[in-house]
Amino acid sequence: MAEKIYIIKIGGNILDEADKISSFLRDFARIKEKKILVHGGGKMATQLAEQLGIPQQLLDGRRITDAATLKIVTMVYAGYINKNLVAQLQAAGCDAIGLCGADGNVIEAHQRFHSTIDYGYAGDIDRIDTKKLKSLIDLNLTPVIAPITHNGKGQLLNTNADTIAQETGKALSDAYDVILVYSFEKRGVLLDIDDEHSVISEIRQAEYEELKAGKKIFAGMVPKIDNAFAALKGGVKQVIIGQAEQLPQLLNNEAGTKITNEKP
Amino acid sequence: MAEKIYIIKIGGNILDEADKISSFLRDFARIKEKKILVHGGGKMATQLAEQLGIPQQLLDGRRITDAATLKIVTMVYAGYINKNLVAQLQAAGCDAIGLCGADGNVIEAHQRFHSTIDYGYAGDIDRIDTKKLKSLIDLNLTPVIAPITHNGKGQLLNTNADTIAQETGKALSDAYDVILVYSFEKRGVLLDIDDEHSVISEIRQAEYEELKAGKKIFAGMVPKIDNAFAALKGGVKQVIIGQAEQLPQLLNNEAGTKITNEKP
Repeated sequence: MAEKIYIIKIGGNILDEADKISSFLRDFARIKEKKILVHGGGKMATQLAEQLGIPQQLLDGRRITDAATLKIVTMVYAGYINKNLVAQLQAAGCDAIGLCGADGNVIEAHQRFHSTIDYGYAGDIDRIDTKKLKSLIDLNLTPVIAPITHNGKGQLLNTNADTIAQETGKALSDAYDVILVYSFEKRGVLLDIDDEHSVISEIRQAEYEELKAGKKIFAGMVPKIDNAFAALKGGVKQVIIGQAEQLPQLLNNEAGTKITNEKP
Repeated sequence: MAEKIYIIKIGGNILDEADKISSFLRDFARIKEKKILVHGGGKMATQLAEQLGIPQQLLDGRRITDAATLKIVTMVYAGYINKNLVAQLQAAGCDAIGLCGADGNVIEAHQRFHSTIDYGYAGDIDRIDTKKLKSLIDLNLTPVIAPITHNGKGQLLNTNADTIAQETGKALSDAYDVILVYSFEKRGVLLDIDDEHSVISEIRQAEYEELKAGKKIFAGMVPKIDNAFAALKGGVKQVIIGQAEQLPQLLNNEAGTKITNEKP
């Protein structure tokens, strides 16, 4: 068995709530095993775009990244959010280092090509430099990755944080036993979207197909779970989906939904 | 003799000129010796503050960093400028890694205390983690340092880039032969501020005192040269002041002003 590493994605709304994020970061800092934090954006980029009068286009929930928007997300994600997370982790005793994909060339991507939609400066990942990440981790540094990558030709690109977490997990699974944690607002995968107590504690591929066929899983959850199984297929040992506030319980299998193909 | 390292500060206005900065970065990437880039801010932070209607106060050329301004400089310096410099260096074949002081806790500072002036979130440097910087450099990474530090308690601080370059130079002089380069608009220290050809090619302490006593040095240059001698006193081998566009010539002693206490 290889050494364990946690790759923890912290998403959306919690980044806008100072108290919750502080508490989450203290919990994260306490994890004794090796770990990586991947963060999304929150509402700040949208707010800044509004203040600056830059219209934001969303298409199927994805932001169209024109040049002005790329500038904003680079400032907010790789600047403000990333550096504040790092400073707070340092205060909590975790030797964090903020990275975007360009730093140490850790994530190289290409500009998304689509025959009919111009996504602008959106990046799809080509390569994760696992050797470089491992070198940083071996210095006892904890990478904090912002959802900005680059194309190796000087162009920064806006890249989905869920995808960064998944691809990083897959890439590191040669060197580590990877546990991928998607933390968000909900307590896990819910059987009934209106009932926070209907968390499914464990899902295996066969059960998932059954649940999907019976339409027992909320449609909005399907892409997240599909991604989770793709990560498992790529070598990740376990995916955990749950609430950021419950991080310690998620890691102890006391909360959230565990998605696994391991024998029980 | 220890291994040589160049610490190169790139200042102010050139950061706003895309062509000049690209050319500078290609020159920087070609340096074969170990190297660190320290960058300032340029006009973008001031412009963004104006667009957002945040009034900027300057006192003796120093920005008063209130909370709204700290947010802006964190976004612009540690986000937009830092990540674009890193992406361009990567494109030029230099394995750059962007850092603010919080990343890897490389620069710890405290909030400036002054009995009558409230500088806000301005940071004065307490400690450079030379071991951490050396570990990164030993991975063949080239640190690109933004002028944002932290206090170790979760607070980011705005810190002068010239000072970061000087303190980093002094701190690394135990491990390396440090050459500190301040690149800016002028071709070096000028005898006549209106004559770009009046560059003084070399200044030693004794000559400097003479030049100063005779008021032969432009007053605006005095703090820069005082800083240079302070760096030499702190262990830096040589300080070079000159024009960013002439970087290769500066490093070959073919341009700029060399400030040194070494025997000729």
